[in-house]
Amino acid sequence: MQKVKVGIIGAGRIGKIHTDNLLRLPQVEVVAVSDLFAGAELEAWAAERGIAAVTKDSGALLANPEIDAVFICSSTDTHVPLIQQAAASGKHIFCEKPVSMDIKQTMEATRTAEEVGVKLQIGFNRRFDHNFKRIEGHVRDGTIGTPHIVKITSRDPNPPHKDYIRVSGGMFMDMMIHDFDMARFVSGSDIVEVYAQGAVLIDPAFAEYGDVDTAVVSLKFANGAIGVIDNSRQAVYGYDQRVEVFGSKGLIAVTNDYPNTAEISTAEAVYRDKPLHFFLERYQAAYEEETRMFIDCIVHDKPVPVSGIDGLSAERAALAAKLSLVLQRPVRTDEAVQLAEQHLHFA
Amino acid sequence: MQKVKVGIIGAGRIGKIHTDNLLRLPQVEVVAVSDLFAGAELEAWAAERGIAAVTKDSGALLANPEIDAVFICSSTDTHVPLIQQAAASGKHIFCEKPVSMDIKQTMEATRTAEEVGVKLQIGFNRRFDHNFKRIEGHVRDGTIGTPHIVKITSRDPNPPHKDYIRVSGGMFMDMMIHDFDMARFVSGSDIVEVYAQGAVLIDPAFAEYGDVDTAVVSLKFANGAIGVIDNSRQAVYGYDQRVEVFGSKGLIAVTNDYPNTAEISTAEAVYRDKPLHFFLERYQAAYEEETRMFIDCIVHDKPVPVSGIDGLSAERAALAAKLSLVLQRPVRTDEAVQLAEQHLHFA
Amino acid sequence: MQKVKVGIIGAGRIGKIHTDNLLRLPQVEVVAVSDLFAGAELEAWAAERGIAAVTKDSGALLANPEIDAVFICSSTDTHVPLIQQAAASGKHIFCEKPVSMDIKQTMEATRTAEEVGVKLQIGFNRRFDHNFKRIEGHVRDGTIGTPHIVKITSRDPNPPHKDYIRVSGGMFMDMMIHDFDMARFVSGSDIVEVYAQGAVLIDPAFAEYGDVDTAVVSLKFANGAIGVIDNSRQAVYGYDQRVEVFGSKGLIAVTNDYPNTAEISTAEAVYRDKPLHFFLERYQAAYEEETRMFIDCIVHDKPVPVSGIDGLSAERAALAAKLSLVLQRPVRTDEAVQLAEQHLHFA
Amino acid sequence: MQKVKVGIIGAGRIGKIHTDNLLRLPQVEVVAVSDLFAGAELEAWAAERGIAAVTKDSGALLANPEIDAVFICSSTDTHVPLIQQAAASGKHIFCEKPVSMDIKQTMEATRTAEEVGVKLQIGFNRRFDHNFKRIEGHVRDGTIGTPHIVKITSRDPNPPHKDYIRVSGGMFMDMMIHDFDMARFVSGSDIVEVYAQGAVLIDPAFAEYGDVDTAVVSLKFANGAIGVIDNSRQAVYGYDQRVEVFGSKGLIAVTNDYPNTAEISTAEAVYRDKPLHFFLERYQAAYEEETRMFIDCIVHDKPVPVSGIDGLSAERAALAAKLSLVLQRPVRTDEAVQLAEQHLHFA
Repeated sequence: MQKVKVGIIGAGRIGKIHTDNLLRLPQVEVVAVSDLFAGAELEAWAAERGIAAVTKDSGALLANPEIDAVFICSSTDTHVPLIQQAAASGKHIFCEKPVSMDIKQTMEATRTAEEVGVKLQIGFNRRFDHNFKRIEGHVRDGTIGTPHIVKITSRDPNPPHKDYIRVSGGMFMDMMIHDFDMARFVSGSDIVEVYAQGAVLIDPAFAEYGDVDTAVVSLKFANGAIGVIDNSRQAVYGYDQRVEVFGSKGLIAVTNDYPNTAEISTAEAVYRDKPLHFFLERYQAAYEEETRMFIDCIVHDKPVPVSGIDGLSAERAALAAKLSLVLQRPVRTDEAVQLAEQHLHFA
Repeated sequence: MQKVKVGIIGAGRIGKIHTDNLLRLPQVEVVAVSDLFAGAELEAWAAERGIAAVTKDSGALLANPEIDAVFICSSTDTHVPLIQQAAASGKHIFCEKPVSMDIKQTMEATRTAEEVGVKLQIGFNRRFDHNFKRIEGHVRDGTIGTPHIVKITSRDPNPPHKDYIRVSGGMFMDMMIHDFDMARFVSGSDIVEVYAQGAVLIDPAFAEYGDVDTAVVSLKFANGAIGVIDNSRQAVYGYDQRVEVFGSKGLIAVTNDYPNTAEISTAEAVYRDKPLHFFLERYQAAYEEETRMFIDCIVHDKPVPVSGIDGLSAERAALAAKLSLVLQRPVRTDEAVQLAEQHLHFA
Repeated sequence: MQKVKVGIIGAGRIGKIHTDNLLRLPQVEVVAVSDLFAGAELEAWAAERGIAAVTKDSGALLANPEIDAVFICSSTDTHVPLIQQAAASGKHIFCEKPVSMDIKQTMEATRTAEEVGVKLQIGFNRRFDHNFKRIEGHVRDGTIGTPHIVKITSRDPNPPHKDYIRVSGGMFMDMMIHDFDMARFVSGSDIVEVYAQGAVLIDPAFAEYGDVDTAVVSLKFANGAIGVIDNSRQAVYGYDQRVEVFGSKGLIAVTNDYPNTAEISTAEAVYRDKPLHFFLERYQAAYEEETRMFIDCIVHDKPVPVSGIDGLSAERAALAAKLSLVLQRPVRTDEAVQLAEQHLHFA
Repeated sequence: MQKVKVGIIGAGRIGKIHTDNLLRLPQVEVVAVSDLFAGAELEAWAAERGIAAVTKDSGALLANPEIDAVFICSSTDTHVPLIQQAAASGKHIFCEKPVSMDIKQTMEATRTAEEVGVKLQIGFNRRFDHNFKRIEGHVRDGTIGTPHIVKITSRDPNPPHKDYIRVSGGMFMDMMIHDFDMARFVSGSDIVEVYAQGAVLIDPAFAEYGDVDTAVVSLKFANGAIGVIDNSRQAVYGYDQRVEVFGSKGLIAVTNDYPNTAEISTAEAVYRDKPLHFFLERYQAAYEEETRMFIDCIVHDKPVPVSGIDGLSAERAALAAKLSLVLQRPVRTDEAVQLAEQHLHFA
């Protein structure tokens, strides 16, 4: 078997995770890595892993005809041009979420990949999680009947650094985008309308950048179901990742993962350890699986499990939520782009 | 000790429950019961319990100077006049929820009771439940810090009969009113705005009467917290009654009560019995407790735990939700009465 | 319907519990109570409940021809003579456990009741508990197949007072006797052999009286199953009452009851309240049910759910366990009486 | 850093698991594998992993001076001679459990490794499991006070093949040996006496070989605690691996691991998936960890976490259990070897 040769663009935390997961796959060879801040440290890291080429220039990496597929893990503003270039070079593309902050650009990038005929998979890793897959499967096979209500809770253990808040794109595009995708994934339907409530209850820094740190967003789905997502930037007990789908024949709900099942009963209380702390622990297996699936789709020429349209749809819902918060009214996803032009001012 | 002498107005299911709970209290004597449909059956029922007087005429009961307190368990449209008459007779009043479908009338009835100086307790029985009391206590004592997000799930096992749907006042006033009160109870704050999504997913009969059978309502609280309530008229697995409050120092969540703790592991799955089926089983102890507390407040002349203002506030939130559904926009509770005059047409 | 007239012999804690439960049954009248220490306090207690006759003399109570049934709640050494007298007077008998410390006497008392034709129910209240009934039902209906392994955990929150330890009859006869009955109840089979390990780990006072405070007892059943009971006199986290039966088609297990379902997640841990504290809270409903069933058996002339043979069998297993601890070898229940004569010295 | 060069002796299922886990460690090189049945298949397997040398001759592997450490994963009867040879060659040794069926030989092998100064780690993988480590840690740090009662449940999903039963060494030496080690691990104390009950309830084949398929074994520990282990060869619901330690300050208990946290509520029941099926799924991470620790102990010259004495102690308890079953009496671990000579006949 000929190995799939992969290049990594952007060697931050997530780029390194994907690299290590790729290296576990016998049918993959990671041949190059590019990063704007490449230096001695990255070179050592690459050498340990037998990755020959390290460069600051993503263009050079993309120009390498040997490379079959790229992982785009650089900053969000670079995603669209990199997708365009990678597609032009005929390389399959795994791109981190969100594709961009500008839905029109996301649409174009998606279209390009489709026209050229390269695979484009978006990094919604949670779809590969054991818990959420179980929900999706049971909704799809009809165990709980027709979905009526979808509920998603997603809370981070700690707020990000102030510098990150500024460039994050806001809670809806940065954090809740995962949940919009999850809502589509587990309901098997598109989001048609959202109503967003937001508040700054954790750190005034969020307000400085026009952002919120706490949100509850109501959802309407194309299939008639309704739902709600709640987010917080700071759950002191750790990463809170729960989903439930209620339907005509029952309810399926998943709760958090824990580091162990130990329960301790003392004179004070019955207690257990907190949930797995954050996404690196919680979604380690899901990251492995999304990488494995992407490579598998290339090897066997199958459609990717998370398409550009999926990326686009989640972005559109995030944009609608942002608009809903600003306009204080429900916003349809199909009016979001036009409304954004009227009401939001992107630099 | 002199016994508190009680009269029961309306001897349907809930009137009978209160009666039996009252009979367990050594400091109470139930001396009379009135019901529009009083007959041989009710007389037998009363005789078994040593209740001497049975009448069709609530007026006769209210005219009995011996009676210290009445339980108003008749149909909703009779509540306000009965409160007025009972107050005029100087009797303490326990009134089932909602006080009325017309907030102005509820206000007046509440004011009358206050002016006359009789106690008026509203039948929000869930406040006396072991689970929800535990939440309220831990929110109040600061265990979870400042509340940020309140989530309430409340689903009935079966939809009511079509005849009931017609006169129920709609899902928000009939069913979710309990949850609006719960939201106020566990958050320690008033609801200032709601946004309602509703759908008819269970039975088209609901649509016939302009009602919904599935709803998700977003909430804003005076203390800055946000939240969500979801309701369904039919959870096939039984009565689903869960609440959680997320705050700056943690999360407190309660799940359902079960008939036993048995867990069965077979070659197919690990399973347990469904939750307690419906409100009679689920809230039996809470009904006992609310009755005990009401009598206790009379005996020791203390303020009642659920006041007319509490009844009023929940009704206002229910009305705002109904308006939000009609107007498809968020509605403030302080604009609900005025908006209702413009947009809703009560017979 | 003519009411069943009941007399209570022994008005300690358990006698009072049974009285209050009986008073809730419409078909029962409690007409008399006897207690060695009857005085003003007991008379006031009885008066509040409308019980006319209070006496120090159980003989006088038993001589009352009006009384249909007695509850024997006095000290263990009085049980057998009282059963004999009650049977001679043709009264149905509810007797607290154990019937006696001397199996031969228990046999005789059981035989007398049978010959005379009065009902004799033994106070193994746990058989009426929601959890253990669920196990027994699922074992009986074959859900878990043929029982292979029975496991029972039973731990008290606090050791009894030193004065009580002295007269308790020892851990096996006083405490584990409930578990021997439970083992028979859930397995549907007799105990044929036991091996007892015991230790004094909580309070040296137990050693002073030749008793233990911690024990693990292996069991063999007539149907081929094997099992184990563990007891402790002090579980600091509260009353620990768990049972599981493992069989050819699966496992059924029950865990403790809790005062609520609240789960609190903080920066330190995820915790909940301790289990219900002790038997009064834990088995309140079971006490009500055993009383109701006893009366029901009298009214409808049905066999009692817990017979004298059941009392006898549990005592025999307890005796065998005591002997096993002394002899440091497994002891068959059918050799226990004879071995006891050789090795144990009862006053 | 110079890599630790490892040879694998015995390339059955467990040998292959260790190999793959070793290959994930950057500081390890697997240089050779020996197996009595080595052939084209094993060579292909080795080639895929870059393992150069494949041989049928463990002697050749042990003669390779380049090899620093060996993993002995061949059949139990070969363990002792291989340990002797490996020690003579100065190689560190990881040996699967049990070291042998003959405690005297285990003692000698352990002594040899100690005298020569090579590391000898025994494959009690469960010590490295997240759940059991948590128990051990909390017992050690005093969270639950002094241990009083230790309870271990260990049940396999399916009985082994008849051919395996014949050579397995019996349930105590083959299966419960893990639990004897666990009992020592979590209690922090030695087992001084056992009493074994056994039954053949699953497959008569066990009886043919003088073995049992169901067992309950009582334990006494040197520190005064008592306990019990139960085993079954067939739990239809999957691998059942639970442990609890009850002590003067509380209880710590772990239950099974599940493939996900999904809970499904339907009109029939509330259910979830069965526990992880068997040891390969359940202890995957523990196998990785024991391998990592062994290599770490070599690299940093630290004492191994599971010593030859640990292997020996578990074997001694297993032998005592076997004798207890035969003799139908409790057996002290310090009399097991002598009793075995009188009562057991090993070929």
